[in-house]
Amino acid sequence: MAPSEANKRRVTILGSTGSIGKNTLDVIEQLGGRDAFEVVAVTGSANIELLARQAKAVGAGLAVTADERRYDELKSALSGTGIAVGAGRNALLEAATAPSDWVMAAIVGTAGLAPTLAAAERGADIALANKECLVSAGNLFVEAVAAGGGRLIPVDSEHSAVFQALEADQRHAVERIVLTASGGPFRTWSREQMAGVTAAAASAHPNWSMGLKISIGSASMFNKALEMIEAKHLFDVRPDQIEVVVHPQSVIHSMVGYSDGSVLAQLGCPDMRTAIGYALSYPRRPVLNVERLDFAKLSRLDFEAPDEARFPALRLARTALTRGGLQGAVMNAAEEVAFQAFVDARIGFLQMADIAEVVMDAMVDWGAASSMADVFAVDEEARRRAGEVITKIEMAA
Amino acid sequence: MAPSEANKRRVTILGSTGSIGKNTLDVIEQLGGRDAFEVVAVTGSANIELLARQAKAVGAGLAVTADERRYDELKSALSGTGIAVGAGRNALLEAATAPSDWVMAAIVGTAGLAPTLAAAERGADIALANKECLVSAGNLFVEAVAAGGGRLIPVDSEHSAVFQALEADQRHAVERIVLTASGGPFRTWSREQMAGVTAAAASAHPNWSMGLKISIGSASMFNKALEMIEAKHLFDVRPDQIEVVVHPQSVIHSMVGYSDGSVLAQLGCPDMRTAIGYALSYPRRPVLNVERLDFAKLSRLDFEAPDEARFPALRLARTALTRGGLQGAVMNAAEEVAFQAFVDARIGFLQMADIAEVVMDAMVDWGAASSMADVFAVDEEARRRAGEVITKIEMAA
Repeated sequence: MAPSEANKRRVTILGSTGSIGKNTLDVIEQLGGRDAFEVVAVTGSANIELLARQAKAVGAGLAVTADERRYDELKSALSGTGIAVGAGRNALLEAATAPSDWVMAAIVGTAGLAPTLAAAERGADIALANKECLVSAGNLFVEAVAAGGGRLIPVDSEHSAVFQALEADQRHAVERIVLTASGGPFRTWSREQMAGVTAAAASAHPNWSMGLKISIGSASMFNKALEMIEAKHLFDVRPDQIEVVVHPQSVIHSMVGYSDGSVLAQLGCPDMRTAIGYALSYPRRPVLNVERLDFAKLSRLDFEAPDEARFPALRLARTALTRGGLQGAVMNAAEEVAFQAFVDARIGFLQMADIAEVVMDAMVDWGAASSMADVFAVDEEARRRAGEVITKIEMAA
Repeated sequence: MAPSEANKRRVTILGSTGSIGKNTLDVIEQLGGRDAFEVVAVTGSANIELLARQAKAVGAGLAVTADERRYDELKSALSGTGIAVGAGRNALLEAATAPSDWVMAAIVGTAGLAPTLAAAERGADIALANKECLVSAGNLFVEAVAAGGGRLIPVDSEHSAVFQALEADQRHAVERIVLTASGGPFRTWSREQMAGVTAAAASAHPNWSMGLKISIGSASMFNKALEMIEAKHLFDVRPDQIEVVVHPQSVIHSMVGYSDGSVLAQLGCPDMRTAIGYALSYPRRPVLNVERLDFAKLSRLDFEAPDEARFPALRLARTALTRGGLQGAVMNAAEEVAFQAFVDARIGFLQMADIAEVVMDAMVDWGAASSMADVFAVDEEARRRAGEVITKIEMAA
């Protein structure tokens, strides 16, 4: 898309109050702030105070909360600023469709699907931090981006690393994509130990400061499972070309293996701003004030094979990749429901994967999606079934 | 250069009987052998039997030994094959200037300068394994390649890694080049321990199978010192942009650090064929039958700061880089003489660097080279002075 008259890059931040959103605003500030960017819209959810503060700081054109009930609160916080205010699903879509060149898609969960798709369809460059667009919508989303004409640039540190290590003219020579995984806080724990953990323990990630959903997904390696499915869609590789290796220090963010025996890796300190800045400035690397790796200080990097017996999410991802169709959407929806039940202390940590597996097996005959309606239908059905399984577990307890 | 009528790539291998040369022939065989390549010339030195066998195996047009006295031996070994035979310096130049598209420049030491330069001047792509072309001739060599119109592709695993990790369109964003060093067999030794070692002990490299010159250069880290100077010329960076980190496993072959905090690294098993194949097929990565990295088996990678007190060669390289001019040529020539004296048990291991430093300091006023004659003159003078220092050491002993 053409830049605005003032030659500023017009950007939209869907999910500005989460950790990705906050880091995005920091990067925008580092790369010139209002002199270089026009922030068309920011969106958040429950944290109205932060959302209003962000909107004022960047002079956003529009601020939207996903929570319809918080409209008045946001309106009042921004009164007199000239910043337009919205709330609820339609307002989120409005924020996503307002003309801009670049959209940070950082709304967590299935809630991010519709707005991100809307932004892709109108041809904006999509900096993708929401996993569900690829896990659930898969080809439909990739096709929407292609049809819109924008670029799809992953922001997840692993996929950004692969994106950086993939040489555009060497796609013929790509043998494998190696996603690194920190292994999370339970890397060395037995299944017996994991069975009894609380959401608080599971959310203590060793290397990254993240939200609850992502932290617990790291502990169960469900994040990695979703990333495997994303990798397939982002990089158009076969399931058997996707490897996972546990690398507790999270310094190597991921790698690409080529047919000449070379492996290219992207490394960095655990700071999301590098991947965000890369996506914002792509294809020209920016200058960022982030910590540089000091290899002598690193001392060592460790690697180990992932244990699919202790982390069944990885096995489920292989199953979903092999089965294809809507199994990714099913896995993700069932896991979101199971995650919430775990946070609410209704089920145990290990039962999250059990529930996803039961629902995936039950819905194995659901074919590929031909429209987003199919994706939403399978999502809804998987959530319903996951809810049923959880109720049964509670009744049996 | 245009490919030959038969559409085969015409290749020349200067130094085919050394480890790089042997690996080059293996790669040529892997990538189609006589069906894909026409081997214009192979050259060697003392190992006439191997040189003749190689020439016959690939159906070379010309086989040359650098050792004039071995002409008859080579002639007799190749009689009836139709392969032309030569011996001595002029024959080496003839091999280098015979029309071909690609030249592997793998003659070790200053002896490789003239033939490699001749190949560069006629516009062949140069796969550079000889360090002295850049260390001694520096800008003159780079300019000769540019004037000839061929490409310069490094074959040294470290520089190949940097070459692969350098994004062509992101040169503005390169902050630093991080050369990894195995640390050699004396990585953890004290200066006192190193003082008494023999050439046999110093040539036992932990990771790579290499010739004596390169093995001992690894033990003293003189190789790394030369690589630092090469990196400056290959990648056009300032001395302070070149880092060295000790990485005993030699799995990360080297890295490039960018202004967004990203570091791109090239990794692989310790097998020179990956870099050779990359150089031969550049810009299209080939399919090579070499071992693939298994990250779970790797288990760990270690890093430590290099100790310039125990490995003064690194300090000398910084000095040479800072002083500029012909100091690289001086350092290299003095070290070659000192290396031979060490192999001959005339001096101790640590005295190699002492000798290089004395000669560098004595020749600090020699300015930049304006012609190859200057390079050869400074080389000769540095060798003469190094010889004098060695004689003094022997007389004092």
